[in-house]
Amino acid sequence: PVMEGKALLFKELSGVDAVPLCIDTLDSDEIVQFVKNIAPTFGGINLEDISSPRCFYIERKLRQILQIPVFHDDQHGAAIAILAALKNALKIVDKRLSSVKIVVIGVGAAGGATIKMLLKMGASNIIACDKAGILNKNDDSTMLNSFHREICFETNPDNIKGELSDAVKGADVVIGTSVAGILNGEMIKKMERDPIVFALANPVPEIMPEEAKLAGARIVATGRSDFPNQINNALVFPGLFRGALNARSKTINFPMMSAAAEALSDSIPEEELSEDRIIPSVFDKGVVERVAKAVFRAAVDSGVGHIDP
Amino acid sequence: PVMEGKALLFKELSGVDAVPLCIDTLDSDEIVQFVKNIAPTFGGINLEDISSPRCFYIERKLRQILQIPVFHDDQHGAAIAILAALKNALKIVDKRLSSVKIVVIGVGAAGGATIKMLLKMGASNIIACDKAGILNKNDDSTMLNSFHREICFETNPDNIKGELSDAVKGADVVIGTSVAGILNGEMIKKMERDPIVFALANPVPEIMPEEAKLAGARIVATGRSDFPNQINNALVFPGLFRGALNARSKTINFPMMSAAAEALSDSIPEEELSEDRIIPSVFDKGVVERVAKAVFRAAVDSGVGHIDP
Repeated sequence: PVMEGKALLFKELSGVDAVPLCIDTLDSDEIVQFVKNIAPTFGGINLEDISSPRCFYIERKLRQILQIPVFHDDQHGAAIAILAALKNALKIVDKRLSSVKIVVIGVGAAGGATIKMLLKMGASNIIACDKAGILNKNDDSTMLNSFHREICFETNPDNIKGELSDAVKGADVVIGTSVAGILNGEMIKKMERDPIVFALANPVPEIMPEEAKLAGARIVATGRSDFPNQINNALVFPGLFRGALNARSKTINFPMMSAAAEALSDSIPEEELSEDRIIPSVFDKGVVERVAKAVFRAAVDSGVGHIDP
Repeated sequence: PVMEGKALLFKELSGVDAVPLCIDTLDSDEIVQFVKNIAPTFGGINLEDISSPRCFYIERKLRQILQIPVFHDDQHGAAIAILAALKNALKIVDKRLSSVKIVVIGVGAAGGATIKMLLKMGASNIIACDKAGILNKNDDSTMLNSFHREICFETNPDNIKGELSDAVKGADVVIGTSVAGILNGEMIKKMERDPIVFALANPVPEIMPEEAKLAGARIVATGRSDFPNQINNALVFPGLFRGALNARSKTINFPMMSAAAEALSDSIPEEELSEDRIIPSVFDKGVVERVAKAVFRAAVDSGVGHIDP
């Protein structure tokens, strides 16, 4: 039903006709071959529910082979929505992405892609935490897979070692893409002034919003619709694919993803920003269209799409 | 557009939701693997446009692996429609399938499956002709592929050798699934009394109906809608899949195919049969439903389907 639901959201929110195809294999190369073979049928491919680190290999390979957009929503949909929300949160607390200390908890599909995207956008101090603690390039035991090994050289500039609680100390931003309840009030209290806490584990967040607020968090976001600031991929993929398909784009590149994030942030006027409104609701009219237009323009400008004559 | 058109016919004629998937590979094992991997998404698989003899290998393999109906329309859709029309044609000329001499021209997907089906239905004297003439088990040069090699032992009981013109001599029925214009009036004149000629090459038949009639053909059928007796797969696959899906059948077996052919023949009452009406039109209301009901019943009776409680 996840696949069918997404197909429905594609159609409802952006008029994109999507066909849910479930694949009976877990072998990475077989998945690559499958998608390659199905590609002539479609204008674009949205990958779903492929676990980390296989998802990184599969997506990279497909992007090399195919001449149509390939997008792994669990990675980039999440990263784009997180980035959009973070931009607005940083405006409220008057801090800059290039100088804040950001802790990312859970370096899987969503966390990994978020780290990559934050780095490309200019973040310079990211601490990545997974089950074995802070990823540290001098400590092999902290790296659980090849993607961790790849990312440890681009994160943790001060070469910190330790547990999640050590990472969170003095952080400006904590982004959880992990499991329920692994953050607590004591950790939040040790963050920098005006803590930003994105607790995106679903359905139960890394810390409940009330508890985070009580411990001093200035801005809290979750993946849930029953709290303010819901960070939801449905804000991203419909407009992103609509824009890419309208431009008959050959791919979804970084300029398109960054344009999507920007359009998403900008859809809340600066004067309407508040601790409880850093990202629009999926029911806000016009958001999908704004994202689609920005992505279309970025595709054309970056040379991977074109305007029909 | 062939795939999209068929999906539309599925929906229009029988309410079956079909998704056209085009595959970017010609490798048989890759096609098998692809279909196996996509199977969880669907209630049944209709293969299209796979050339002979690969289609036989691919379909057999998939039938072994999968627990849902797999049907190669180019083979069995054609065979079922041909069998249905032939049954009615034989009624008109008062001959029996078990004793007539049948020439099948073109032993590809359609011709091959037609021969197999005719044999199962009791035909005993089939002459198979392909590019190298009459298939003869003692002459290797007449067999162009592994399927020809397989079929030569079940056909040509009198061990005839020669060209198409030799095969047609004294035949009661000629079924062309080959190329335009390879039959002529001289050949038709040498057939048995009341010749039945199915010239199914599309868009230009093996012999034009007027020419065949002029040479003495009693009954002529083609694949075209602008002549009487159009033998069209659209009479078969919508009802066949509707019946199989309604019964949640694990496969499409011979009893189901034979029931489809019978329902198709029987949808013209005996008193309405004529030289120009041996098979119903695709626009005849009720045909799809009759086929679906017969197939449903055959699936349940043969133990591969079930009636929902």
